[in-house]
Amino acid sequence: MKKIYNFSSSPTTLPQQVVEKLNSQLFNYNGTGLSVLEISSTSELGAEIVNSAKKSLRELLNIPQNYKILFMQGDASAQFSAIPLNILSERKYADYIVTGIYSNRARQEAKKYADVAEAASSGGANPIFSTIPYTQKSDFRPDSDYVHICYNNTLYGTKYYYIPDTGNIPLVADMSSYILSCPIDVTKFALIYAGVENNICPGDMTVVIIRDDLLGGGRKDIPGVMNYNLVAESDEIYSATSLFTIYLAKLTFDWITEVGGLEEMKRRNERKASLIYDYLDRQSYYTSPVDKKCRSYTNIVFFTGDANLDSLFIRRAAEEGLINLAGYTTIGGMRASLPNSMPYEGVEALVGFMKKFAQENPKLEM
Amino acid sequence: MKKIYNFSSSPTTLPQQVVEKLNSQLFNYNGTGLSVLEISSTSELGAEIVNSAKKSLRELLNIPQNYKILFMQGDASAQFSAIPLNILSERKYADYIVTGIYSNRARQEAKKYADVAEAASSGGANPIFSTIPYTQKSDFRPDSDYVHICYNNTLYGTKYYYIPDTGNIPLVADMSSYILSCPIDVTKFALIYAGVENNICPGDMTVVIIRDDLLGGGRKDIPGVMNYNLVAESDEIYSATSLFTIYLAKLTFDWITEVGGLEEMKRRNERKASLIYDYLDRQSYYTSPVDKKCRSYTNIVFFTGDANLDSLFIRRAAEEGLINLAGYTTIGGMRASLPNSMPYEGVEALVGFMKKFAQENPKLEM
Repeated sequence: MKKIYNFSSSPTTLPQQVVEKLNSQLFNYNGTGLSVLEISSTSELGAEIVNSAKKSLRELLNIPQNYKILFMQGDASAQFSAIPLNILSERKYADYIVTGIYSNRARQEAKKYADVAEAASSGGANPIFSTIPYTQKSDFRPDSDYVHICYNNTLYGTKYYYIPDTGNIPLVADMSSYILSCPIDVTKFALIYAGVENNICPGDMTVVIIRDDLLGGGRKDIPGVMNYNLVAESDEIYSATSLFTIYLAKLTFDWITEVGGLEEMKRRNERKASLIYDYLDRQSYYTSPVDKKCRSYTNIVFFTGDANLDSLFIRRAAEEGLINLAGYTTIGGMRASLPNSMPYEGVEALVGFMKKFAQENPKLEM
Repeated sequence: MKKIYNFSSSPTTLPQQVVEKLNSQLFNYNGTGLSVLEISSTSELGAEIVNSAKKSLRELLNIPQNYKILFMQGDASAQFSAIPLNILSERKYADYIVTGIYSNRARQEAKKYADVAEAASSGGANPIFSTIPYTQKSDFRPDSDYVHICYNNTLYGTKYYYIPDTGNIPLVADMSSYILSCPIDVTKFALIYAGVENNICPGDMTVVIIRDDLLGGGRKDIPGVMNYNLVAESDEIYSATSLFTIYLAKLTFDWITEVGGLEEMKRRNERKASLIYDYLDRQSYYTSPVDKKCRSYTNIVFFTGDANLDSLFIRRAAEEGLINLAGYTTIGGMRASLPNSMPYEGVEALVGFMKKFAQENPKLEM
């Protein structure tokens, strides 16, 4: 059978080594005779897996002790509500930087609970979010409760090339499609969250890394499952209950550690992305709308300039085993997502196909 | 290796036939070369799995067309908040029947949003919830927005032996540890919800079956992921995103259909439970605190009357491959959970062990 490379942004494929480990343990975890699918997160064995997953993540990201790691139920969009519900003060001021559909959706959700300001945006009149605005401290309301950013824009293929300076205002970042792709200076953020499906593992779970001083406040009527303080204090009832997802996350953390940690991930991801960007920069058949300094190395967006050719590209690529290359519905074109699990060979195959397709399908106007 | 029977209440074991199907498809779904773990719920293939899972469930439970099936993020405790947030009217009256720890937790959560009345309780002075109170229409406030019950009490081993008559007040039931154990007359309920982990499959997802007239109301600030109307209208963003869980649920629905549907499940479950209850009724070594007419056939609680013997029982049973028989922390004793997936042979092994243990460990006072 033809080798298949899945360029979908979510759920992420699992690295081959993780698949092999999973395959060997799925129906008999560490010789217990138990399937990983049937271990309870409240059992001793379950607690061991949860704690060891948190320990691995803390080491990988070098997370200081004054930050808690929470495994929350649901995907990142649950955090769009949880964040304002938990960390707004009585003032209820929240500043959002809008750089794509998800950061805009986060802003919209916050409006249910806060006086929300759009501190900066890469949108403007053009709905294509092709850049990341540069912000300074003066762009934010000095008494804002937090500033929210989305660090990597999965749909448009941009990422932050700097960490916004928000002074004393807590910086909150959605890192769903960025986490574990390279080292992160956690201390620059008050709260980092990441739905696991983009770059960790399949599953309905979100990792929240939160600085202690942000715990314990918020509204009185926060739904229990969204209450950071409750989840931090009681691992039993309110945190993610699906141990299988936590187990998959742990396998992924362990794999990254084994192959050399986040510096090595960064090296691999830059090498993969460069292969495509270097090719894009050398030819004129495909265009990339993204501002060069904001290029994501996890999600790469490109167009032929002809919607019919784009469709043909996506169909033909799938026939070659290069699947899920369609851009987001409202954007069109192509998008190649290159999470940690995407091997270099997959990207080579894609660039090879791009060259072949361009030769075989000359544009009419050329 | 010794055959292991897992009597844990959650997550449920998967039926052997489901495990075999999963094993054959996990890393190559229907010959696509794709792992089920990496199919997106928003892809065509994903949508096909979601729709087919809903169709199977609708047929199994004979769910009328004026009810929607929602696959929601998170476990049943997320619904403790979602229900009042979505279905309270301006009056904000909610009546709860408290028959155990979870129904009480649901009531506590609702107090954040509603004027909550405890319409009935099986607790009283005795913290052991060993029965289910009989209620009549007059027990509920006539202008209440809904009545909430928990149909099967996982921790104490009781279940409703009747459906409360609430007149025109919508009846809402947590059926996490009851759903699919037997046929249910869905039309008697306005909303049924069930976390999948007890009797469907492992995973952080809750099935919500909701009558159309309950959609579209509620508060203006419902978190998006908890908004029934949003989930019903947009399958894409706000519903459960982990296709793997939906796929496991579908395998379970299909398995039940193949072996004869819910009538057959009921026959099997009654046969399994009777084996234990009949034995309990014939001897005096073990006692069951549960009112006979309210006996759950999914969760069976029993005690030796001596905490040390209880501990010994749990340890020895585990050595024989009969695992997770410890009662809930605050209750003690033993609990055997017999979800659909527990084979008759597992229950035979348990009763055999109970007899042997009683013979080998006479009580001192006897």
